[in-house]
Amino acid sequence: MTTHDASRTPLSPTPRTTLTRAKERGVADRAALDAVLDAGLVCHLGVLLGGSPVVLPTIYGRLGDTLYLHGSTGAGNMRAAIDTDISLSVTHVDGLVYARSAMHFSMNFRSAVIRGRATLVTDEAERTAALRAIVEQAAPGSWDRVRPPNRKEMAATMVLALDLTEASVKVRTGGPNDDTADIATGGVWAGVLPLRQVWGEPIDADNLEPGLDVPADVLARVTPVAVG
Amino acid sequence: MTTHDASRTPLSPTPRTTLTRAKERGVADRAALDAVLDAGLVCHLGVLLGGSPVVLPTIYGRLGDTLYLHGSTGAGNMRAAIDTDISLSVTHVDGLVYARSAMHFSMNFRSAVIRGRATLVTDEAERTAALRAIVEQAAPGSWDRVRPPNRKEMAATMVLALDLTEASVKVRTGGPNDDTADIATGGVWAGVLPLRQVWGEPIDADNLEPGLDVPADVLARVTPVAVG
Repeated sequence: MTTHDASRTPLSPTPRTTLTRAKERGVADRAALDAVLDAGLVCHLGVLLGGSPVVLPTIYGRLGDTLYLHGSTGAGNMRAAIDTDISLSVTHVDGLVYARSAMHFSMNFRSAVIRGRATLVTDEAERTAALRAIVEQAAPGSWDRVRPPNRKEMAATMVLALDLTEASVKVRTGGPNDDTADIATGGVWAGVLPLRQVWGEPIDADNLEPGLDVPADVLARVTPVAVG
Repeated sequence: MTTHDASRTPLSPTPRTTLTRAKERGVADRAALDAVLDAGLVCHLGVLLGGSPVVLPTIYGRLGDTLYLHGSTGAGNMRAAIDTDISLSVTHVDGLVYARSAMHFSMNFRSAVIRGRATLVTDEAERTAALRAIVEQAAPGSWDRVRPPNRKEMAATMVLALDLTEASVKVRTGGPNDDTADIATGGVWAGVLPLRQVWGEPIDADNLEPGLDVPADVLARVTPVAVG
């Protein structure tokens, strides 16, 4: 069971926050989990190292009910995760909530927290599918254009799988939840400052040969200049 | 000692990656750590719950060599962290690195990983200073404008401190590190798609009284429309 109790922190449950667990989920809840995961670039992975947790950023991919991670076969952090309980979180910050009192400052966000046992993927077809999912998560449309992993690269790479059964999703939207007395007192601006990620213009590699256009899937990601 | 070995993952050390440990750091390394932390809005906190790690997003503040977290006195996750080893990471993704082969896709990023023992802060002056640091980290310039925490709020809030001694910073910049053979083969676009966070236009709270202007510190955060 994933507890995600952080009430009174700025990433806290509020009347406008939904907290769902995949174990009890309906279609909508599962869709919410997938939406948070599929919109992410990086997760933060928590593993036990020498009895203490360590949190590391890494990329990931999802195929159905399985989340995949990868790393070098020489990476101690990843090896330590095999057949142990791990946790990972994907968080999008959508805005900062300015309140009339210090303790009601908050953030609008979408986050997923997953817990479960990481298993080493050994089937070569699943390993390749997982690596494809990871690359496509970061760079949609790229896999079919580039050289796939060769035998040496596959041998040097470990792939871990994590079931999405034990997951929670939290979403906060909307304005500040100020105390009635502070609203009545007035005189302090309150509201939301929206935040979002934007992709800039692609930059050719220094050693790119002349005459190669930026692929359409890369250009399609570039955020239009109008920011809102 | 913080190991941060994730070689061959897209958040991996490369020739252009610096890996530093605060224990061995010079002034420049410590400045790099502070820069990553001070630019962040959310950290991912890893704590042990029932013997397994759980990773949760939360906000934080820094004062000198101490990082502060806060939560409700009723929050099990935060209570579980007291006097135990925890870890947290702050990560900024600066761009996606498109390579000529699948396994060389990467991200440009700045990340800090901290490990250490969380202690409960009991001194009221330090607690208030920590909460101020946390609010100012998220919303610089706000603390002095808003109602400070009252006695009831302070009683319901726990503040945790984490020493920054055991920290690592990783930074990746630049283009893809493709294999020579893949560069020679050519025909595949490679480069970087920059990513950044932009603040949009402030949105007044629904219940804001008329005639209150958006404060200058909020307006100053709004990202100019030109994206690049």
